[in-house]
Amino acid sequence: MAKRNKRIYFDYAATTPVDSRVIKAMLPYFNKKFGNTMSIHSFGQEAKVALEKSRETIAKTIKAKTEEIFFTSSATESNNFALKGIAFANKNKGNHIIISQIEHPCIEETSRWLERQGFEVTRVSVDKYGLVNPKEIREAIKKETILVSVIHASNEIGTIQPIAEIGKICKEKKVYFHTDCAQTFGKIPIDVNKLNIDLLTASSHKMYGPKGVALLFIRQGVKIEPLLHGGGQERGLRSSTVNVPLIIGFAKACEICQKEMEKEIKRLEGLRNKIINNVLKIEGVYLNGHPTKRLPNNINFWFSFIEGESLAIQLDLKGIAVSTGSACSSFKLEPSPVLLAIGLKPQQAHGSLRISLGRQTTEKEVNYFLKALPQIIKKLRDISVFK
Amino acid sequence: MAKRNKRIYFDYAATTPVDSRVIKAMLPYFNKKFGNTMSIHSFGQEAKVALEKSRETIAKTIKAKTEEIFFTSSATESNNFALKGIAFANKNKGNHIIISQIEHPCIEETSRWLERQGFEVTRVSVDKYGLVNPKEIREAIKKETILVSVIHASNEIGTIQPIAEIGKICKEKKVYFHTDCAQTFGKIPIDVNKLNIDLLTASSHKMYGPKGVALLFIRQGVKIEPLLHGGGQERGLRSSTVNVPLIIGFAKACEICQKEMEKEIKRLEGLRNKIINNVLKIEGVYLNGHPTKRLPNNINFWFSFIEGESLAIQLDLKGIAVSTGSACSSFKLEPSPVLLAIGLKPQQAHGSLRISLGRQTTEKEVNYFLKALPQIIKKLRDISVFK
Repeated sequence: MAKRNKRIYFDYAATTPVDSRVIKAMLPYFNKKFGNTMSIHSFGQEAKVALEKSRETIAKTIKAKTEEIFFTSSATESNNFALKGIAFANKNKGNHIIISQIEHPCIEETSRWLERQGFEVTRVSVDKYGLVNPKEIREAIKKETILVSVIHASNEIGTIQPIAEIGKICKEKKVYFHTDCAQTFGKIPIDVNKLNIDLLTASSHKMYGPKGVALLFIRQGVKIEPLLHGGGQERGLRSSTVNVPLIIGFAKACEICQKEMEKEIKRLEGLRNKIINNVLKIEGVYLNGHPTKRLPNNINFWFSFIEGESLAIQLDLKGIAVSTGSACSSFKLEPSPVLLAIGLKPQQAHGSLRISLGRQTTEKEVNYFLKALPQIIKKLRDISVFK
Repeated sequence: MAKRNKRIYFDYAATTPVDSRVIKAMLPYFNKKFGNTMSIHSFGQEAKVALEKSRETIAKTIKAKTEEIFFTSSATESNNFALKGIAFANKNKGNHIIISQIEHPCIEETSRWLERQGFEVTRVSVDKYGLVNPKEIREAIKKETILVSVIHASNEIGTIQPIAEIGKICKEKKVYFHTDCAQTFGKIPIDVNKLNIDLLTASSHKMYGPKGVALLFIRQGVKIEPLLHGGGQERGLRSSTVNVPLIIGFAKACEICQKEMEKEIKRLEGLRNKIINNVLKIEGVYLNGHPTKRLPNNINFWFSFIEGESLAIQLDLKGIAVSTGSACSSFKLEPSPVLLAIGLKPQQAHGSLRISLGRQTTEKEVNYFLKALPQIIKKLRDISVFK
């Protein structure tokens, strides 16, 4: 067993520690190269140069043009910006938006707000693995449709969507296609051109960069209006003093992820499969999400006769941090809408657990977890009221 | 003269370097205490505890309740949130908003967007010193008025507004009062109760904290809706993964500012007055803004027969960083609306320069500037086309 006080972090989908190489890259920009990019003097200009270099580094990783990258403060902001910005800018064309039933709350809640402002939202269903059917999107598109937004991979169950097919349909139907890549950017390859993506959300703190910086890729020619109005930074589309230190960190994080991606995917898939194969041997345990079309680092189980929250707490007492769903919904009592969408009953959803691995995950940690879990399951089932 | 490569930063109103004590406080939260505040496990809980402690520290400095502080990513976001959030949440009550003619672009541009959504905006005038007349606000308030928003102190000319009087009128008339304190928070004392403030914007990077974190104070009971929809962080009013490292930094910056405020005001006023008194001795130089009701660190002159931008560039070549206006508008060719509002002609506005001092400003730097400036002015006037 691991030493006391040694904690194991299996919640990389919620947030990641900042890579030490990233911290090192950011540090000079806090108090040495700290200028405002909008200033004409030398302090401003050195900040501006650093900003544009970072933008270029990041753009390249998804084959975007440099000027198609707009920095924001979070994936939530990017997703609000994408949906509201497209909705308001294109309302003369139509008022219909298509999303899926398994979007992150920031897409779902923004859609609800848009419904209150007079927009119409269709939520396409998913199958038992959490897969959207591109045919359903094709059928849902009508004259008034201005935007389709489908998450690249689910933050909860890890299912990777057929976004190439969806992108192709949107291109053919001349409807903007947005995808939330908070869980995939820097983790699996993305090419905005091959995938026909018009708008893409990515977040730094999910890939070993700092919290507080994210981006929205906006393909040239896309008609969108700002969410944050003001001084006109980011070519008039996203006002706010530009956060150079964090953007430097984001770019460094991208560089590292890009360089290590191929190797890291294989390593994480190995650890992921080891956990899946071993845990499925326990009686009454089922995998949520797709068996193969899933994020290399994501695992999601449901355990019969067990409360996911009790399981998470017991694991925490053993020093293992896992999640019952998305971090955002941890404190809500309702079952996860994503798990209900794939057909789980509320009790099954409540009995589910997400394990997400990352850069610092080791085989030793996996072994410790695989040893601790069956004991906890047995203990919880012994006292279960569900039986 | 100062050594070569030694640069003098006189643009603290645009942004400030992060205090080394602040960097030190933030560092552990990047990669050690990096949890997501919404996670139930120990990583999440230690982040949550740090967050709430920071909130308390900051709330105290303006005599707010802890639960009245909502963290955002920037003053621009806070101002967009305040105006749009109040407008949408109270449109059943009325559609009229009052601002001043010398607001920051993020208030002015948000107001213009609200006008396009059917809201009515009144912009009260200012006198030659940039002062709003509270009587004009009283007269502008009508049945439909839902919000008054007046900047605490101008980011360009430094004039401090009579916000106590404005707050009193708003309270009496039962209209929400918002004030943008980006330039005053941490610099001069603020008491949200004495000043009858309902909503207040403050920003970390203007007071030696990191860029990318700010706050909106929202008095308990104020009806507002979110700008960022999603996971429901910040008690449902501001979704996004909470940026604990930067909030820790913001709180530390507040602590330092609060502790050093009294002494720092005196020190900066001394340096400010030294510059004002000496520069005004030069022929054809005039002070923009109020002679006494102004920020301790703000100086703004207009120079006859001189282009402000040329002056800024010449000073930059001598290693001195100053600004022609707000950083946000540095690249725009239009004269500053704030300077036009105090009665300057476009040519006079173009001949203006902002010098803003800060924590690292020394008497030696001031002396260097006072020696360099007259020489540059003479040189520029010799070649001036305006004469």
